[in-house]
Amino acid sequence: MSDRKIGILGGGQLGRMLLQAASNYDAEVYILEKTTDCPAAGLASKVVVGDLLNQEDVLAFGRMVDVITIEIEHVNADALAILEAEGKTVFPSASVIKTIQDKGLQKQFYADNKIPTSPFAITQSKEDIKELADLIPAFHKLRRFGYDGRGVQSIKTESDWEKGFEEPGVLEKAVEIDKELSVIIIVNENGEMESFPPVELVFDPELNLVDYLLSPAQVSESIGRKAVEIAEKTVSAFKSPGIFAVEMFLDPKGEILVNEIAPRTHNSGHQSIEGNFSSQFDQQIRMLMGLPAGDSSAIKPSLMINLIGEPGFQGPPIYEGMDEILSLPGVYVHLYAKKETRPGRKMGHVTLIADDIDSLLQRAEIVKQTIRVIA
Amino acid sequence: MSDRKIGILGGGQLGRMLLQAASNYDAEVYILEKTTDCPAAGLASKVVVGDLLNQEDVLAFGRMVDVITIEIEHVNADALAILEAEGKTVFPSASVIKTIQDKGLQKQFYADNKIPTSPFAITQSKEDIKELADLIPAFHKLRRFGYDGRGVQSIKTESDWEKGFEEPGVLEKAVEIDKELSVIIIVNENGEMESFPPVELVFDPELNLVDYLLSPAQVSESIGRKAVEIAEKTVSAFKSPGIFAVEMFLDPKGEILVNEIAPRTHNSGHQSIEGNFSSQFDQQIRMLMGLPAGDSSAIKPSLMINLIGEPGFQGPPIYEGMDEILSLPGVYVHLYAKKETRPGRKMGHVTLIADDIDSLLQRAEIVKQTIRVIA
Repeated sequence: MSDRKIGILGGGQLGRMLLQAASNYDAEVYILEKTTDCPAAGLASKVVVGDLLNQEDVLAFGRMVDVITIEIEHVNADALAILEAEGKTVFPSASVIKTIQDKGLQKQFYADNKIPTSPFAITQSKEDIKELADLIPAFHKLRRFGYDGRGVQSIKTESDWEKGFEEPGVLEKAVEIDKELSVIIIVNENGEMESFPPVELVFDPELNLVDYLLSPAQVSESIGRKAVEIAEKTVSAFKSPGIFAVEMFLDPKGEILVNEIAPRTHNSGHQSIEGNFSSQFDQQIRMLMGLPAGDSSAIKPSLMINLIGEPGFQGPPIYEGMDEILSLPGVYVHLYAKKETRPGRKMGHVTLIADDIDSLLQRAEIVKQTIRVIA
Repeated sequence: MSDRKIGILGGGQLGRMLLQAASNYDAEVYILEKTTDCPAAGLASKVVVGDLLNQEDVLAFGRMVDVITIEIEHVNADALAILEAEGKTVFPSASVIKTIQDKGLQKQFYADNKIPTSPFAITQSKEDIKELADLIPAFHKLRRFGYDGRGVQSIKTESDWEKGFEEPGVLEKAVEIDKELSVIIIVNENGEMESFPPVELVFDPELNLVDYLLSPAQVSESIGRKAVEIAEKTVSAFKSPGIFAVEMFLDPKGEILVNEIAPRTHNSGHQSIEGNFSSQFDQQIRMLMGLPAGDSSAIKPSLMINLIGEPGFQGPPIYEGMDEILSLPGVYVHLYAKKETRPGRKMGHVTLIADDIDSLLQRAEIVKQTIRVIA
């Protein structure tokens, strides 16, 4: 087994869960984060304080380790390209991160590689929207540095153009969505590819937030197969080792369109820690260490609920109702060690596993009605 | 959920795996160990350097935390009794640890509580063995500080008495063993008791070492039920919260005798990390935090193989064959982060899970023939 020293850009919950997986292999893992008070700090071999977007900080960090990966895509990709040129292993490659950081380049990448995706146009300013009536209703997105709903504007009618962004953006035609699916794929340095079964993101129709995640997705076998095929075609086109979450829309006609890709572990793979033989984090650490890919198939059906900071509370978190939910069978709690809760902040998640979907849905209702993250 | 600060006496692999489980609950956990270079150090909130057998060290450590547990029974139990008197929570209680530390008291405890165990006699010196012919063939054991085969002498015939110990000991009649079984039981502060399904320790007949561990034990339902009943009766008699591994002999007539008890997590529970809904370490951290017991039932049949330092090698470990075994389905590697391998040292373990026992046994053969811990 390799003695590669691994560096993660970012010290959030994704880094924390990668470190949990890494601990089984006794891997040496450094993290770069702007504070030592981050979720991943307590489990890292070393915490280096720095700015993920600062070229010098990323360069200095990368030179301390052998293999570099990310847990967030907002990093200085130029520094990663320099590190690659210096002979460091960067998974995913700097070029993949550059493409994904820019929603315009990302959409163009799908078009160039004949990946099904919704129609779009690149915009320089909101004035451009007026010329793109055939795409409306649409979403106007900032090309760079949008995150978790920030940097997205809904353009429902032509007269909404003024809600658009003045900075470089991309206008994406709104599609009718039956379900949102995600397929996580690992590609290792030997080109070996291993895909997780498709999962389904179930949205709360009122709040328009992910309500829970269901694995496997409740779709026909042919839809499931098609989702994996499209995801694999997309990831293959990147020609880089890494772990990728391919988020897709299934429309009412059964067409699948790629929405976006995260070149890292993803919220839609958290249930794999207990629900699949090898989790997304186990796969990631295997990939980084040059070990063979694990078996991503499902052990049992699983369901994941994010633990979100309750509106109206800010401060050291209190997890109300934990005793009750821990009495349920097949329930797993993952807290992210964040020192402070804020409204809407991801503070942890709960995974349920069971033999059938009905049991999962019943228990999920109990969990949702019971647990609250307050302060 | 409680904000109890937890202290573990000992920083070996059992502490390490408890810390892995604790990380899901964001628990604050300190360890006491004689070196910062121990398996648990990298995952602990704080490492306190001290001697587990030194009263002042244990007292000072215990006063830093709210709840104290052990990962090894060779600790200063007097200090734990003082901490209890001071109001600290000690799970298992100091009195349980004192009983178990002394194999004479432990056997007497079984006799007093009508727990089936092999006939025995307390000895002051090896001369006493000569008067105990009806117990021979027997094992002569040191009452205190025997560990992993040290402090045990086989007394096959009366003339073997000279091989016995001069210090206080216990002579235990040798019993015919069909299988060795283990049941792990958690008792929480509300008196709630949760038992894992019995597992079977399969020995290598030539080396007389545990070859692998199989869960569930391949015994009839009635034998399995009897093993759990005896284990629960034994643990109930201790009248203390804690986690307990009850090791038992099944003789060819179907009788079950308690061999010994570990008042802590145990090698015979490692497969529960992947094989059971709640692992022994998850149960332990729940118990320490005052959370409800988890579901200890099996997800799938599982098998555990210890990774032992190969004879003839000493130094920084090299795990030969890791790539090959990680290509098998349902295989999990746990390395203990020990800086040096030595002949016979437990360096890690491998767990296999599968739908049937045959697949487990086939893959176990591959694992055993493939992996070697060398230097």
